[in-house]
Amino acid sequence: MLQIWALDGIREITPGDDLVRVILDATTEPLRDGADGSLRDGDIVVVTSKIVSKAEGRIIHASDREDAITRETVRLVASRTSPTGHVTRIVENPLGIVSAAAGVDASNTPEGTVLLLPVDPDASARALATGLRAATGAHVGVIVTDTLGRAWREGQTDHAIGAGGIHVFEDLRGTTDAEGRPLVVTLPCVADEIAAATDLVKGKAARRPVAIVRGRGDLVGDLDLPGARSIVRDPVRDMFRQGADEAYAEGFAAGRAAAG
Amino acid sequence: MLQIWALDGIREITPGDDLVRVILDATTEPLRDGADGSLRDGDIVVVTSKIVSKAEGRIIHASDREDAITRETVRLVASRTSPTGHVTRIVENPLGIVSAAAGVDASNTPEGTVLLLPVDPDASARALATGLRAATGAHVGVIVTDTLGRAWREGQTDHAIGAGGIHVFEDLRGTTDAEGRPLVVTLPCVADEIAAATDLVKGKAARRPVAIVRGRGDLVGDLDLPGARSIVRDPVRDMFRQGADEAYAEGFAAGRAAAG
Repeated sequence: MLQIWALDGIREITPGDDLVRVILDATTEPLRDGADGSLRDGDIVVVTSKIVSKAEGRIIHASDREDAITRETVRLVASRTSPTGHVTRIVENPLGIVSAAAGVDASNTPEGTVLLLPVDPDASARALATGLRAATGAHVGVIVTDTLGRAWREGQTDHAIGAGGIHVFEDLRGTTDAEGRPLVVTLPCVADEIAAATDLVKGKAARRPVAIVRGRGDLVGDLDLPGARSIVRDPVRDMFRQGADEAYAEGFAAGRAAAG
Repeated sequence: MLQIWALDGIREITPGDDLVRVILDATTEPLRDGADGSLRDGDIVVVTSKIVSKAEGRIIHASDREDAITRETVRLVASRTSPTGHVTRIVENPLGIVSAAAGVDASNTPEGTVLLLPVDPDASARALATGLRAATGAHVGVIVTDTLGRAWREGQTDHAIGAGGIHVFEDLRGTTDAEGRPLVVTLPCVADEIAAATDLVKGKAARRPVAIVRGRGDLVGDLDLPGARSIVRDPVRDMFRQGADEAYAEGFAAGRAAAG
């Protein structure tokens, strides 16, 4: 049985806040059904990047959100202009993550400001795991999430952009299926699955940025396990490292030059 | 509190099996902690496409899995040949889903056979929801899942490819954030998040193809709600409808022809 719940009573986070203390305070509350909400061995603490960014002071003044996106962009992957003139840019941000706004977040931020992603979400997750383990004695893992769109599918789901003390992949390579054949290509990204699962308990537009997942303690491990950065595919291996329109245009120019 | 568990004791499924009966039999078992496992109003029943395909007889003899993939491909999206000569093809299948093997599945199938996806997983999900509601009186939703890779990210996660009696998106458009600003672009794909969450309870290579999600009954609705087909992005709107190498090559040829 997997149990997932969001912590109630997390107040607005401001720069310099100690998230370990904030989470501990929230987990000392009994759960709604009266059960003990304290962290236990094997619990996975899942935190939105939004509050990590706020605690780390990654708030900037931005009368123009587009400027912030441009500054956070290391590579334009694709862009498209709608009939009404709205430009959608899909870009790679400094973390290697491909998304629609380079991780620049203008929702649930004070007016006139935008949030940047944490500089190193894996380091943030490891620091949280270290602090929570020291304070509680419980062997917990931490995942930091962001909401991302997908190629080929509408809508967004939450993904892992930081991980500390937890296996981000469940490596089935080397195991066999029920017929005894090797499961060679299966590499479930459990960190992304956990991130997605916790989005289901956050509540619409509510301030419930921390969730606990109980029941997969086997995924919790050493603090030096690879972080969520290891989920990002190297563009060299990526068949979709560039949008179709952009690749076509580059090819067209190269073809014309080769013929000329 | 969200609770997720896999049903124990689901036997090997063969063509013609009545999955409604199979699931009902498995839910009459008490849960491991002794709790009542019967379906309740608001439960979401999540079923792998593998057993739906088996029940629907979508098993074909295939000495050559590649032939089956070719037959199930409606559009080649991208392909790449590794230094060892292995060809990875990313293709669109008849359901519009972009994946590495057109949904052709050779794991956990009898030797010498491969599984094709259900012909219409939304119809399969609706039929299951109808049957389970009629048999139990409980207002349940059904999701049919498949394991898919992602652009830009390593590994796979489970996704919704069929849905019956459940909202596949949680539409936040029209609601506001905590600062009162509209959440204009947010369209969480809850069906994919539920599919991902249940992969966490299936167990490594185990035969636990059905999971129950309890705690999001607000997503369960009428049987005529849009299915998982509505998650698939129309290629016309899709900036990644073709791999970068393929688009470049097309552009190159067009550019050379234009210059010549």
